[in-house]
Amino acid sequence: MARIQPLSGFPEWLPEQELLQQRVIRHLSTWFERHGFQALTTRAVEPLSVLASKGADTDKEIYVLRRLHATDEDGDSGLALHFDLTVPFARYVSERRGDLFFPWKRYQIQKVWRGERPQQGRYREFLQCDIDVIGEQTLSLRYDGEVVRMLRDALATLPIPPVVLLVNNRKLLEGLYRGLGIEDIISVLRAVDKRNKIGDKGVAPLLSELGLADDAVSTILKAAAIEDSDPDVVEAAVRALGVSHPLIDEGLAELREVLEMSGADNVRAALHIARGLDYYTGTVVEGMMVGHEHIGSIASGGRYENLAGSMGGGPQLPGVGVSIGLTRILGYLYGAKLLINQRRSPCQVMVLLPSEDDRAACENIAQTLRSRGIATEVYHRKAGWGKQMKHASRLGIRYAWFPGNDEKSHEIKDLIAGEQADVDLATWMPSSDDTLPLILDGEELSWQGLR
Amino acid sequence: MARIQPLSGFPEWLPEQELLQQRVIRHLSTWFERHGFQALTTRAVEPLSVLASKGADTDKEIYVLRRLHATDEDGDSGLALHFDLTVPFARYVSERRGDLFFPWKRYQIQKVWRGERPQQGRYREFLQCDIDVIGEQTLSLRYDGEVVRMLRDALATLPIPPVVLLVNNRKLLEGLYRGLGIEDIISVLRAVDKRNKIGDKGVAPLLSELGLADDAVSTILKAAAIEDSDPDVVEAAVRALGVSHPLIDEGLAELREVLEMSGADNVRAALHIARGLDYYTGTVVEGMMVGHEHIGSIASGGRYENLAGSMGGGPQLPGVGVSIGLTRILGYLYGAKLLINQRRSPCQVMVLLPSEDDRAACENIAQTLRSRGIATEVYHRKAGWGKQMKHASRLGIRYAWFPGNDEKSHEIKDLIAGEQADVDLATWMPSSDDTLPLILDGEELSWQGLR
Repeated sequence: MARIQPLSGFPEWLPEQELLQQRVIRHLSTWFERHGFQALTTRAVEPLSVLASKGADTDKEIYVLRRLHATDEDGDSGLALHFDLTVPFARYVSERRGDLFFPWKRYQIQKVWRGERPQQGRYREFLQCDIDVIGEQTLSLRYDGEVVRMLRDALATLPIPPVVLLVNNRKLLEGLYRGLGIEDIISVLRAVDKRNKIGDKGVAPLLSELGLADDAVSTILKAAAIEDSDPDVVEAAVRALGVSHPLIDEGLAELREVLEMSGADNVRAALHIARGLDYYTGTVVEGMMVGHEHIGSIASGGRYENLAGSMGGGPQLPGVGVSIGLTRILGYLYGAKLLINQRRSPCQVMVLLPSEDDRAACENIAQTLRSRGIATEVYHRKAGWGKQMKHASRLGIRYAWFPGNDEKSHEIKDLIAGEQADVDLATWMPSSDDTLPLILDGEELSWQGLR
Repeated sequence: MARIQPLSGFPEWLPEQELLQQRVIRHLSTWFERHGFQALTTRAVEPLSVLASKGADTDKEIYVLRRLHATDEDGDSGLALHFDLTVPFARYVSERRGDLFFPWKRYQIQKVWRGERPQQGRYREFLQCDIDVIGEQTLSLRYDGEVVRMLRDALATLPIPPVVLLVNNRKLLEGLYRGLGIEDIISVLRAVDKRNKIGDKGVAPLLSELGLADDAVSTILKAAAIEDSDPDVVEAAVRALGVSHPLIDEGLAELREVLEMSGADNVRAALHIARGLDYYTGTVVEGMMVGHEHIGSIASGGRYENLAGSMGGGPQLPGVGVSIGLTRILGYLYGAKLLINQRRSPCQVMVLLPSEDDRAACENIAQTLRSRGIATEVYHRKAGWGKQMKHASRLGIRYAWFPGNDEKSHEIKDLIAGEQADVDLATWMPSSDDTLPLILDGEELSWQGLR
């Protein structure tokens, strides 16, 4: 049989990379729950009718399912894998609205699938981490600010480069475009959304193709260049464009409130942020890693007034949420060797094995340590001390445990400090910092809340 | 638009059910890591060639993928969703063997998909939780015992009914069948594997159809009825069948060792356990919930000598592992209302909101509590105290926090005990038992390690 090859666009990590990913997931879950967000897992599969026509290029990226030996009548046709977590969330809410309490805050960490052409930073299967708040009939703008602030704070606790959040408001853009006499708003939004990739020089001809006059194109590009963390500066720049429409005032007011609520140097208004998905109606946000902007946004989201309600036919269920692209972040940092986890094993202690006859005694030592919450492994076969310790070091295990002949004669060696000392099996505890540091861009980093 | 309907076979939980599921997953992950098992996540998708022909009825249950707007040449054809975690694990190991240290212990908690006809306890999408140990060239039988013991201990820590593990050995069965002159071993194994569902009366005609004489059928059914936790009793019963073959001796010796290593009243040899999958070669195990055997096995696994090696073409990579059917367990217990979580919210504290003007102060209280690890929510709008506390109770939040005018004048009400008292914002901590109990089959259960 031929050697198995990786599938392009379907990433998998090595054990030390996966260990870190799991710690990040656990940390984010705990963080979200601490702020009152409830866990949700939706099925990976939706009826195609729920997924289709959500905007931009999503349709052509949808993976549909078929049973290998399917007959035409068995009804599996029309099922497809979800491409994000917002649409399934909205569908779940509209299906279960009677069982939920609103406003409902939920987090959701799951894989999604997109049949994209695989390239740097683009995956066909990847992990998304979403938080959303959804209301019944109305949802205060304050949640837009809360969600942006949660995103800022959650990203700040991760072992990744600093992040800047760029915020905009769809109403502001729509007001500008309507004020310019444009009717096909979505097409203009989609063209402007490409600015980061293709620049003004790439966007301008796209706008001209839509039939816009040069003056309008120029104003749109001038607007798209506005970027500042001070709402007064943003408002002055927008007013200076000389366009007026009620939605401009509404959008500016909303943008100001979100900036003020989430206020920090690394949260800025940026009027080129448009987001390709059709369902956004107000606030939109994207996050970039500072110094690594070329990989594109690593988090994004916004406000959607009509998504959930439109599915169930009941009253409106407005929502606002953001999504963190865990796989995009980790895939890039791992791939560029910017983030290195030296711990391959979850264990802090390796109990060394003097001989096969000592196995039961060694297992008892391990069980004693485990009962106190200390992750512990017993070396798997008879070998010299040196070989056993070298193996522990390779796995990133910090402590080698030398079993004693009785309860009192145990010794422990710190494989980093190189120190060996007597130890009491009944009481020894490692400190929570007794693990090998992460390395981010050459700097050593503690595991902080990731343990 | 029509009302959204659930998809049969693709279960989703309510928030309180999901909260418990997430705690179970977190608990199992921590438990496995404490015993030296490393996390692995594999892609959900495999080449069809890797998944096909793994035995029993798996082929017809495979879901293949196709891009919605696929052209014939874009190479996505031939991809399918995995139906278990053992095959992807074996593929991963054979692909990455140069980066791994053996014996490698890994755990993996992921969804799998099977296009089965949906029925009680059968799902099309469900969560599996696997542990496996894999060796290079050889793997000590001791790991069979370790894995069975881990399964027993892990299940004992979950809020589910008691579990019995039934262990058998494929070599023992093969030896018996070969000793009876049978050559098509797999077909006989598959027939015997149906005994739990269709009984001896159903299995007998299947065996006769395979061309077996009545004597052989009778001996096979007599063997299948052997079940005991004492290896001596099992061996005596096997010898009394009057069949001899070297594999019988080998299988009995292995079965004895596994029973002795995992020894406990709830681990028994049961010679009707055969497992439908072709890749098992020695130990096989199935777990049932006592009193709920009618839903079938809720955990299963075994030893596979040739699975991983056969994929990469390199030397053999023997493995042994077990899989816990989390969705089957929770789906049944939730559906039958045997397991009820009264906590809908992850929060322990609801900060009450005196007026909209107090929101910033209330958020500050919440942030202070969160910074000490206490999950806290602020009530979402102005309402009477009674209404706010009733909402907290409905969410299963135990404490209502009455904000004071200064740091010293806060009060807290325990909504279960009904007691209200002054509280110091700077120091108050709930005890870890301050949550509503789970209810299992009418009995109150603490959250134990599930917090």
